[in-house]
Amino acid sequence: MRLGLDLSGGDFAPRAALEGALAARCELPDDVEIVLIGDASTTRNLLVDYGADSTQFSLVHAPEIIGMDEQPARAFKLKHQSSIHVGFALLKSGQIDVFASAGNTGAMMAGSMLSIHPIEGVIRPSIGTCIPRPDGGINLILDVGINSDCKADVLYQFGILGSLYSQHVLNVARPRVGLLNIGEEEEKGNLISKAAHELMKDSSDFHFIGNIEGRDIFTDKADVIVCDGFTGNVVLKEAEAFYTLLKSRGINDDYFDRFNYELYGGTAVLGVNGNVIIGHGISGPTAIKNMLRHALEVAKSSLPEKIKKAFTV
Amino acid sequence: MRLGLDLSGGDFAPRAALEGALAARCELPDDVEIVLIGDASTTRNLLVDYGADSTQFSLVHAPEIIGMDEQPARAFKLKHQSSIHVGFALLKSGQIDVFASAGNTGAMMAGSMLSIHPIEGVIRPSIGTCIPRPDGGINLILDVGINSDCKADVLYQFGILGSLYSQHVLNVARPRVGLLNIGEEEEKGNLISKAAHELMKDSSDFHFIGNIEGRDIFTDKADVIVCDGFTGNVVLKEAEAFYTLLKSRGINDDYFDRFNYELYGGTAVLGVNGNVIIGHGISGPTAIKNMLRHALEVAKSSLPEKIKKAFTV
Repeated sequence: MRLGLDLSGGDFAPRAALEGALAARCELPDDVEIVLIGDASTTRNLLVDYGADSTQFSLVHAPEIIGMDEQPARAFKLKHQSSIHVGFALLKSGQIDVFASAGNTGAMMAGSMLSIHPIEGVIRPSIGTCIPRPDGGINLILDVGINSDCKADVLYQFGILGSLYSQHVLNVARPRVGLLNIGEEEEKGNLISKAAHELMKDSSDFHFIGNIEGRDIFTDKADVIVCDGFTGNVVLKEAEAFYTLLKSRGINDDYFDRFNYELYGGTAVLGVNGNVIIGHGISGPTAIKNMLRHALEVAKSSLPEKIKKAFTV
Repeated sequence: MRLGLDLSGGDFAPRAALEGALAARCELPDDVEIVLIGDASTTRNLLVDYGADSTQFSLVHAPEIIGMDEQPARAFKLKHQSSIHVGFALLKSGQIDVFASAGNTGAMMAGSMLSIHPIEGVIRPSIGTCIPRPDGGINLILDVGINSDCKADVLYQFGILGSLYSQHVLNVARPRVGLLNIGEEEEKGNLISKAAHELMKDSSDFHFIGNIEGRDIFTDKADVIVCDGFTGNVVLKEAEAFYTLLKSRGINDDYFDRFNYELYGGTAVLGVNGNVIIGHGISGPTAIKNMLRHALEVAKSSLPEKIKKAFTV
């Protein structure tokens, strides 16, 4: 497996990215190749700085940088030598098996849409987030911000995408898919959620268990929680706010400590022709290391192939 | 002031309601009259049971009960002798200054709409919830479930309603109104939130401070958080789930303990011609007591008159 890492992406690039890569190098199997994508001389100097063995990595030169606040699609199109553009080119040509970056999320989505493209039949690719459960399990909630307005058929497809991710990456044998709603009864909800429920209730594409409410986000009721990206983004940021409040009040707890985004490091773009992992802009070395570990899991799962198969009628 | 209390409403009625009324009687000023609305003989027997002085209360006979799972509008229309129907009749005729119930929320909304009616100009009445801040303040988030689909003009009006509640009930001198969204920038959001931002940005009806994100729900950034009832309901239930998780893990903390809904007891219906307080169905005596305390605050604020004035062009 060859894991491509954007060295120029994220608020603390390139140092946080390189430190994360060094940590991952110690933990990942030897047959896993880490491909560092960034300005070659900067990378070499940094490797010397850290006293690292540069033969442990492959280097691909990408002198341009897409800033965190740049207009994403425009920057992706114009900056051919940027780490994100080069990363997608490597992914598309099969020179890497997965591309991971903590850089400009919009540019990563632009690359996903414009370079490797959505899988045929997928209306809107999506990104989700892992939510820890007290029983040790993990719920996947999607979408969390890429698709703020979703029609019912898009939510239905999120059920398929989430189910496949839960099954093949999180190893849940038969993922239970719940629709995030404001009541358990079928007739509850807004116009979109009611229409989505109607589509989902007889689904043979995934194991639909009905509506779930905000109170069930952290429970064992569903493994996959489907919602539009507006709601999912608010849910995610509220959970992050809670975690921040707990930390600020000096509360430590085994379960709540699993809310630390650094443990997951990044999230896969679901529904595109390749393995793309997007990390948090504020990622430090630990988050980058775990993003690479997660990238390996995703790459091993052959998720795009599984999704392609599901969307082939 | 005369506070009307539904004795037949809530999962633990009538005992929880009566115990709450007894506790409130000890705490509220003598010139505040508590009007118990329920089956008269049941109420008298219970008062004897508790060894209470029945002269401390006014009793109004209402032998019928609207169950927690009954179809709300239908039950409200047909059960003229129900505690909720009688309560609204008393409110409408001015025999009580506020009507509070932990009963069927839909029936309470039906009464608000069909008996006392929305204030002229208010498109959709709303209910909000108080969210505690670490600095001791309280944020109001609205809507939290009555209006699951909201157009931009409805969200705009929630800004007015919430601002008046914050000012006159929570005593915030100049409430800052934020629009719950998935980014701080004006152009972020779904179609509705973008349209709402456009309406709000030059508002002279309230002090709009722009978009706020899920991470700001518990911060001092805005005093009033406006969103559609779908999002607000999910946010509220997620916060309740967190509180439940903290309790289940034995974590006690002064701040998080303020998430206990029992401290607030109930929430006012905003935008109708009268003071209506809706409590949680699971209310125990403490929640009922605090619902009555809150009912007194709301009644003293003359909120419907303030709202009428704001909606008079």
